[in-house]
Amino acid sequence: MNNNFTYLNGEFVPFEQSFLSVSDLSIQRGYAIFDFFLVREGIPPFLSDHLDRFIRSAALLNLDLPYTKAVLSEVVRSLIAKNGIRNSSIKMILTGGVSPDDFTIATTGTTLVVINKPFELILPDWWKNGGSLISCNYQREFPEAKTINYIRSVRWSQRLQETKAAEILYLDRNWVRECSRSNIFCVKDQIVYTPKSNILAGVTRKRILQLPGLEVRMMNFKLKDLLAADEVFITSTTKGVLPIVKIDDTTIGNGKIGSVTKAIREAILS
Amino acid sequence: MNNNFTYLNGEFVPFEQSFLSVSDLSIQRGYAIFDFFLVREGIPPFLSDHLDRFIRSAALLNLDLPYTKAVLSEVVRSLIAKNGIRNSSIKMILTGGVSPDDFTIATTGTTLVVINKPFELILPDWWKNGGSLISCNYQREFPEAKTINYIRSVRWSQRLQETKAAEILYLDRNWVRECSRSNIFCVKDQIVYTPKSNILAGVTRKRILQLPGLEVRMMNFKLKDLLAADEVFITSTTKGVLPIVKIDDTTIGNGKIGSVTKAIREAILS
Repeated sequence: MNNNFTYLNGEFVPFEQSFLSVSDLSIQRGYAIFDFFLVREGIPPFLSDHLDRFIRSAALLNLDLPYTKAVLSEVVRSLIAKNGIRNSSIKMILTGGVSPDDFTIATTGTTLVVINKPFELILPDWWKNGGSLISCNYQREFPEAKTINYIRSVRWSQRLQETKAAEILYLDRNWVRECSRSNIFCVKDQIVYTPKSNILAGVTRKRILQLPGLEVRMMNFKLKDLLAADEVFITSTTKGVLPIVKIDDTTIGNGKIGSVTKAIREAILS
Repeated sequence: MNNNFTYLNGEFVPFEQSFLSVSDLSIQRGYAIFDFFLVREGIPPFLSDHLDRFIRSAALLNLDLPYTKAVLSEVVRSLIAKNGIRNSSIKMILTGGVSPDDFTIATTGTTLVVINKPFELILPDWWKNGGSLISCNYQREFPEAKTINYIRSVRWSQRLQETKAAEILYLDRNWVRECSRSNIFCVKDQIVYTPKSNILAGVTRKRILQLPGLEVRMMNFKLKDLLAADEVFITSTTKGVLPIVKIDDTTIGNGKIGSVTKAIREAILS
């Protein structure tokens, strides 16, 4: 049971009564974008970055967003204040609205949903010993937009559980792109690299790119380069900086968490 | 205003009150499959084929469908009888259900929605003079499953309207696959060809493959082969057999509807 409120097209409604019409374009055609972030002690860190990306995703999918960034920020802060959950998550979804023909974007307006739920981070063993990835040939559509299309990773979620892997690594014909819900980095000879194009620009990735004193080269590289790296790690809002010590059957470096990864993790946590 | 009923997880509910929770996996992760077909004078032709495909799509996405084909057929027929619309459409959607973690398929059960709406075929000029296609490099994910992911074609719907094209042609690095909501055929030296793999097997396509006295070769071919064909046509439940006389800037054959296309269209209509 969840007694919290959801923001739904201008109104606060109880979560248990938060529904969309079956004619909504998200249900009819999977047409929606979203963003997701955490709230710690009532404060959503990096809210501005997440709202920027939400606005960018909407524009890329031609979805009308009749709210300024300031108004969106106020909606999020009001919802957090109203629910008063200490540690929670916010998911903002913008859909194509109630389509007149079950195909085109609604002329009557898009649908904005903001969901606020309790969220406590659970740290699996990966954080201590490093995790593994399983790879998959897949290029996300409209990669710069955070669309709701996660068919590939949901379909593979059982495989993730069976292999105890931390994430699915997406390769576009051997070019390293990103993981299903994280960005990827590698370290070779003390230099940090992260793919440059056809990816979703993560908020934690951006923070690493801006770390003082750290040079990160944004450039595309191939799977063989990744497997030959000294260290690999992935980043996301919920995972933070997560060391990767194995990809499919290949051990990365000496199979232990590397010193550069450790230093970056500490810099991001501080 | 639509006063008809929808079938929603075992109950008939008024269409205007047909809603899914915002935690449904269709809204959270675009995770759902569907099928769509027409009802003429109260009868759904080829229902068996559509139900077979619906069941196949569900299996490909690992979605539990706790109904036999016979029960699904009875649900559809009951809904048609209850609503009593002379000419209508049926859309069946099966989603991952109300997800416990907004990511994995619900253990409490998938969501089945069957929507029945009035539907009258409107025949644009394409049926008389042939239509055009605009091409796009795109390979659908899980192509044999009819998933709800239509992000590409919804995003391009404005371009379709502007160019007055009938459909978007999907090419996988120059291999001809299918259109966004139709299958494609071409005719060269009186022989009919249609792509073999990485496509959705359409019900109208199947009927053409079974036409007595017509040899259709299922084989993959490239865009240059398609552009050099004598005739091109596309098929779908709503479009039937639709002649194509132009692809992007290239006129097909002599730019008129060909004799083989005409014969197939008549055979399918009869």
